Amino acid sequence: MSTWKDPQIAGVRALLAARRPDPDAPPPSAAQRRAAMDAVGEAAALPEGCRHEPCRVGGIKAERVIPKTARPGRTILYVHGGAYTAGSPRSHRPMVARIAEAAHATAVAIDYRLGPEHRFPAAVEDAVAAYRGLLDEGAEPGSLIVAGDSAGGGLALALALALKGEGLPQPAGYFVISPWADLTQGGASYRTKAETDPTISKEGLDQNARDYLGGLDPRDPLASPVFGDFEGVAPVLIQTGSEETLLSDSITMADVLAHARVEVRLEVWPEMIHVFQAWGAILHAARRAIGLAGAWMDGRFER
Amino acid sequence: MSTWKDPQIAGVRALLAARRPDPDAPPPSAAQRRAAMDAVGEAAALPEGCRHEPCRVGGIKAERVIPKTARPGRTILYVHGGAYTAGSPRSHRPMVARIAEAAHATAVAIDYRLGPEHRFPAAVEDAVAAYRGLLDEGAEPGSLIVAGDSAGGGLALALALALKGEGLPQPAGYFVISPWADLTQGGASYRTKAETDPTISKEGLDQNARDYLGGLDPRDPLASPVFGDFEGVAPVLIQTGSEETLLSDSITMADVLAHARVEVRLEVWPEMIHVFQAWGAILHAARRAIGLAGAWMDGRFER
Repeated sequence: MSTWKDPQIAGVRALLAARRPDPDAPPPSAAQRRAAMDAVGEAAALPEGCRHEPCRVGGIKAERVIPKTARPGRTILYVHGGAYTAGSPRSHRPMVARIAEAAHATAVAIDYRLGPEHRFPAAVEDAVAAYRGLLDEGAEPGSLIVAGDSAGGGLALALALALKGEGLPQPAGYFVISPWADLTQGGASYRTKAETDPTISKEGLDQNARDYLGGLDPRDPLASPVFGDFEGVAPVLIQTGSEETLLSDSITMADVLAHARVEVRLEVWPEMIHVFQAWGAILHAARRAIGLAGAWMDGRFER
Repeated sequence: MSTWKDPQIAGVRALLAARRPDPDAPPPSAAQRRAAMDAVGEAAALPEGCRHEPCRVGGIKAERVIPKTARPGRTILYVHGGAYTAGSPRSHRPMVARIAEAAHATAVAIDYRLGPEHRFPAAVEDAVAAYRGLLDEGAEPGSLIVAGDSAGGGLALALALALKGEGLPQPAGYFVISPWADLTQGGASYRTKAETDPTISKEGLDQNARDYLGGLDPRDPLASPVFGDFEGVAPVLIQTGSEETLLSDSITMADVLAHARVEVRLEVWPEMIHVFQAWGAILHAARRAIGLAGAWMDGRFER
């Protein structure tokens, strides 16, 4: 299928195709890849009146993003995507700002340690430290939501397991976008959606998983939450695009959570691609999805 | 697990246990089973001011249920559950009334033909005839939603395929509760949820499937929609309980629909049982679920 009913997603695909690197050029270094992602994030507009400032939380470098709509006490702990090897609060700031705005909350986006310099479970440890730091600052668990996209979606779910394991209180909920939740790349969608996913391939994620895990077991539930026992964790909202090689990770996570008696809502957005919510400037669907997630978070926050 | 966080679902389970028939008594006949279901539905209260009247639509016997909130032109075509061998507009009237009230619509609940007297695809033919009848009466597809529970959820999804196959316009959406969508009983939840499902067993459904299919192939997509090609059908909302032997049918349907680029929302309600929405008089979760489904339908109706 090469035609799309949504003319906007066709436009996004054209943009992505135009950006595709020269196959004969040497692949960018990790530093170059990270700088390019940051540059894209820093070039995009934020919602009107949205502020951001560097901070530390539980000893972890972070960025506080404060939309005009933020209500006192409501916090989203945001863990960015980038395959555990790239991405930052800078690269993801525009989407984080829109999510925070929709949820009437302040976001705290953390600069967790990345592979290959820092292998698993450094990222999980940093997420736990940041969550614990928010509690230490006086945040009520019921006024905290953990959110993340792609690897950050997987990391948000790993954090759910880590909090359970350490006996820490659960937040009000988890909002995960296109989570990378199975680092064995075992899902059917790597086969069924390989041709229509313009950004993510099994080969790329296999390499990213090696860089993150450094030889450790990808079946560790803190690396691949699809292998975890989630009984007792807070409700989860999963949003995914229908054209993702990672589609099966979302379906399998919904199945795993459902079996464990976790309140789950899975939304599949037709024709949409990996983390389409980041294309809010172009895609009506991105704005609608963030609006629905905002309403869900609004309903979850205890104040 | 024998303790439940939700005291109301524990109460429903106690009621179901008290109702369990004497294992030494002869099993009820189909007529007795149907009469008992009708009696339960007719004994329960309807929302205040809700009217109902017999009607025919496309030649199919039906019942029109008109809540006080109904807006002109909005119609829910409702296909009841009962394993394709029992159930009726009478047995399901209280839940249908609450769903219609929440969606600000009139419901038309059809008395489609049941097995074993009328085997597959009689039920599908009746659903198509009723849908066509509503169009013939002047209904706009954008102001129609098809809804159903259990076997009726499967039948609603079979209708989606049949409408596609016959080139009829799609409705505004499908709302399916705990659908029985795989008549091979192939899902993992028949094993994983056998102990916590108080009403539905694989053995029972195997018998119901034989009664409905009369030797025909359970892998026909109009009998088991999990085997269908849904590309192009209208958005689908699936609600299911986490303690259902039919849980996997909902997860698999979400997967099948997602792969086919259909807009899907899957909600899994923790600790809840098969068609828990029918227990609105007791369960807060039932009322919340119907409320959320109503809001979803409200957003889908074009007027």
